[in-house]
Formats: sequence, C-alpha cells, structure tokens
Amino acid sequence: MSEPYTPTSRTRLVREPQRAVYDRAVAYEILDEGFICHVGFVVDGQPFVIPTGYGRAGDSLYIHGSAASRMLRNLDQGVAVCVTVTLLDGLVLARSIFNHSMNYRSVMVLGTAVAVEDPAEKLHALRLLSEHILPGRWADSRQPNEKEIKATLVMRLPIEEFSAKVRQGAPIDDEEDYAFPTWAGVIPLELVPGAPISDPKLDSAQEVPGYARNYSRKKRG
Amino acid sequence: MSEPYTPTSRTRLVREPQRAVYDRAVAYEILDEGFICHVGFVVDGQPFVIPTGYGRAGDSLYIHGSAASRMLRNLDQGVAVCVTVTLLDGLVLARSIFNHSMNYRSVMVLGTAVAVEDPAEKLHALRLLSEHILPGRWADSRQPNEKEIKATLVMRLPIEEFSAKVRQGAPIDDEEDYAFPTWAGVIPLELVPGAPISDPKLDSAQEVPGYARNYSRKKRG
Repeated sequence: MSEPYTPTSRTRLVREPQRAVYDRAVAYEILDEGFICHVGFVVDGQPFVIPTGYGRAGDSLYIHGSAASRMLRNLDQGVAVCVTVTLLDGLVLARSIFNHSMNYRSVMVLGTAVAVEDPAEKLHALRLLSEHILPGRWADSRQPNEKEIKATLVMRLPIEEFSAKVRQGAPIDDEEDYAFPTWAGVIPLELVPGAPISDPKLDSAQEVPGYARNYSRKKRG
Repeated sequence: MSEPYTPTSRTRLVREPQRAVYDRAVAYEILDEGFICHVGFVVDGQPFVIPTGYGRAGDSLYIHGSAASRMLRNLDQGVAVCVTVTLLDGLVLARSIFNHSMNYRSVMVLGTAVAVEDPAEKLHALRLLSEHILPGRWADSRQPNEKEIKATLVMRLPIEEFSAKVRQGAPIDDEEDYAFPTWAGVIPLELVPGAPISDPKLDSAQEVPGYARNYSRKKRG
C-alpha cells in the first residue's frame, strides 16, 4: 500500500468531496493507464491548456514539450503548471437531468515543472515516455541522435501536490425519482484501438508487431 | 463556408505551425464531436485544469460548472479561461523515435467566461449541454426544478479567440530513415461505447432507448 497523502488547500476537493481520492497508489494507477495529459500554465495572466504525452518515473512526471514552447519561453526557474489526466469511463443516465453524470477517473498534479537539460536524463525520459505510450516500440525504432535530443523539450514535474477524483457505477437518483418512468443506467465508454494501418511507404516485408496488433491500456495495471 | 479568422499573438501556433487551422468551421466540427473539455483558470498565480462537459450554441460555449467552484469563487466580472478540447485519433509510429507522433484534433478557446445567472438562459444552456452529450435524453428525463437550476453552475464563453490543431495520416520520416527495417504506420484509437448497463434499481419494464443503444459521436457531423 502507498503512504497516506494529505491534500493541501489547493488540492482538497471543493465540489463533491465524496469523489476525492488522496491515495497515491490510486492516482498512479490512473496516471499509468492514461498517456495524454492537459498541461495548464500561465502567460501574462492568461491560462493556456495544451494536450501532450507524458510518462511517470516514480514520483515524477516527464512531460513531452512538443506543444510547450509558449510555456518554455519564460522558463528559467521552472514554471507553475497543473497537469491533469482524465480517463472517461461512461455516461451516467439518471432519472433526473440533475443527477446525470459521467463515470471517470482523473488526477490533477500541481507544481513547478523544470526543463530537463542533461542529455542523458533527457534520453532516459524520452525512452520512459515512449515505453509508457507504447511498450516495446523503443527498441524497434531508429534511436534519437544528438541533434534530435537537443531539439526535443522535456519537462519534469514532481508528484507532490495532487488530487484524484473517481466516479464509477450506476446513477444515483433522489429517492422520489426512482418511480419516474424512464430508462436509467450507464453507457460505458472506452478508448479502443483499431487494426493497425501500415504506412503506404512501408517495405512490405515488415509485419505488424505484436505491441501494435494487441495494443491496450488496460493491460498495464 | 465560414468566415476567415485571424489568429491573435496568443493563438498563433508556435510549434508545428503547419498543423494550425484557423478555420471556424473546422474548430466547430471538433467542438461538436467532443463533449469533455479541459478548463484552465488561474487562482493566486497557480493554474488549475479541470475536466468538465460543455456544449456549443452558435459562437458561444456553455461549460458545466460541476467542478468549477474553485474558479467561480473569485468570479465577479468573469474569469480568464482557456478551454481545450482534444480528440485522440491514433498513435503514429514512425521509423525514428523523433518522428513518432499522435493523430489528433484539438481546439483551444481563450477568453473571459461569465456565469449564466438568468434562470431561463441557464435552463436553455443545460438543455443544450445535455443534448450535446446525448441527443434525445433531455425529453426522457425528469426536468430540472427551480432549486436544481439554482444549484447548477454554468459558464458562457464567447468563441472569439481560438486555434485548432490537426494531425492526421501516416507517419512522416526523414528521407534517410525510410530504409530502416521496422514496421511503421498508425494504430487508430476511438472512444467506443459499450452495451448499455441498466441501473440495478431499474423498473424492468423500461427498455434501453435507441440513443443509448446506438450512441456515437461520429454521427453528429
């Protein structure tokens, strides 16, 4: 079991506190199943939210900087960020409109992200990111060269201040609404991989590898 | 066709500008296919990013305030937000690690969100939100009463300053990498609905409605 975690005033859930989870193990399970995060940062008082890939190494997140140059322009001592990962599990149809909801699992990590400068750590982070998104792919690919490593931005964010929020299961209606004559339940939703599509320029001798044919996030638990 | 849109310095894409789309029609197609956004806002210099539902009415977004009470606490003249919607379409496996990518469509809307106070507009917005997420459900549900409308937070954000980013199709490798002996292509990803799960407390006479049995985002185009 993971150590207990005490939320700060910034990560204590305000709305629907019954859905709050402050257990590190639960948060890490969510972070490990997801692979797209939404990174929030502030420039001149204006918030920006950008989707990007990430990976977890122990109590740190590595965030791919593909879309982060706007953020990194002002980066010297690190930048205040919020990294949010959301897994959508279903639509929850209650009898009343008011009690309609979604099943989901989300994690929000607050903190100061710093750019990874050391080329060895950056390579390590890129490998971790790649293996997080698609285990097995790194070894099959042409490895990054020095110039490419230099051109790639990676940020490191310690997972210190965080909260998770989880809603699962059937709708919960007000007692007097259970007699209302309508269907109620859950429409499950899942991010499902399709059959891999080979690059038209592919040498036909190359077969689809197992990690592409049997891709699944669920197996990673 | 929609009118041309000139990006501001805040919405002009810095990285990979070839993926930028400033066409309102394209942005609206993305906003209409998605139904979860990530809302960014700032409290005491710290960015927060929270997932929530939304709907579009013409050139405005209505954002469900379920998780936004932290944001709305400080709301008098409106609050600076960034609303980002991301549709993930696939993993792009190139020959080189450096050219690995994802297929996606995303929209970022910057602006000042204001709370919808008028009960009639709020009811209108809630209906729009509900029909955006699950067309047909509103009429089958117990309608919101005065108290519930009061208890629900809805924000309105004009879609004035925005950008869209789209990446689709096969990997693009450096010319000299096409000979590298590995598979390359795309693993498509799609948010797929499963068979509806009836609430265990459901009156067995209630059949699963068509909008729950045949749920799809793609049809909405």
